[in-house]
Amino acid sequence: MFTEKFLEVVNHEGVVSIVTCSNNEAHAANTWNSYLVITEDNKILIPAAAMIKTEENVKANPKVKLTLGSKEVMGHMYMGTGFLLEGTAKFLTEGDSFKMMFEKYPFLTRVVEVTVTSCKQTL
Amino acid sequence: MFTEKFLEVVNHEGVVSIVTCSNNEAHAANTWNSYLVITEDNKILIPAAAMIKTEENVKANPKVKLTLGSKEVMGHMYMGTGFLLEGTAKFLTEGDSFKMMFEKYPFLTRVVEVTVTSCKQTL
Repeated sequence: MFTEKFLEVVNHEGVVSIVTCSNNEAHAANTWNSYLVITEDNKILIPAAAMIKTEENVKANPKVKLTLGSKEVMGHMYMGTGFLLEGTAKFLTEGDSFKMMFEKYPFLTRVVEVTVTSCKQTL
Repeated sequence: MFTEKFLEVVNHEGVVSIVTCSNNEAHAANTWNSYLVITEDNKILIPAAAMIKTEENVKANPKVKLTLGSKEVMGHMYMGTGFLLEGTAKFLTEGDSFKMMFEKYPFLTRVVEVTVTSCKQTL
């Protein structure tokens, strides 16, 4: 699922957009590439401090899209590449993943667990 | 509308997410901070090469949200800041803005003109 190229992007700093949708209105929240924790089962864990609207949307419609990229990683043709990920999200407030993330990011109040179903290089 | 801080972010490289929505499904396309051209009337011009789904969505629902940020620009409390912009988008294929953009970005096929109604620093 996660290619070497994708992991290379995650290892460069940049803005991740977390896109959710309910009532035909999209919302975009952000985090940093360096905050993404990739697990072995095609999941991405993201520390959430606020993300109120994202949580509200996810309750109504768990589908999420993430975008991220880096101008410092080679793309298909030029320097700079990006990825569009699709999946479903859940907000965690307990459990092993929550504990592990809380140790790493003590500012979090919840953890967004994204189960990724598609990870496409867009550029 | 566009603060000094916002312009500082635009002057650092990073990924912009362009979020649109139709039929209760969000779509996210990307561009680079360095591709944004800010005009004097609260508009942002963005070169579009593909962006097929974005154009389709905009025809059904012109509302767009843009997110961008930079870890290298000071935020409210720490290094790293981001912005969430709201507005409406239109795809241009002619006119002065199109010509100006085409000279700058000869790879474009259309120009996304975003009329920004809100520009909030999120971090």
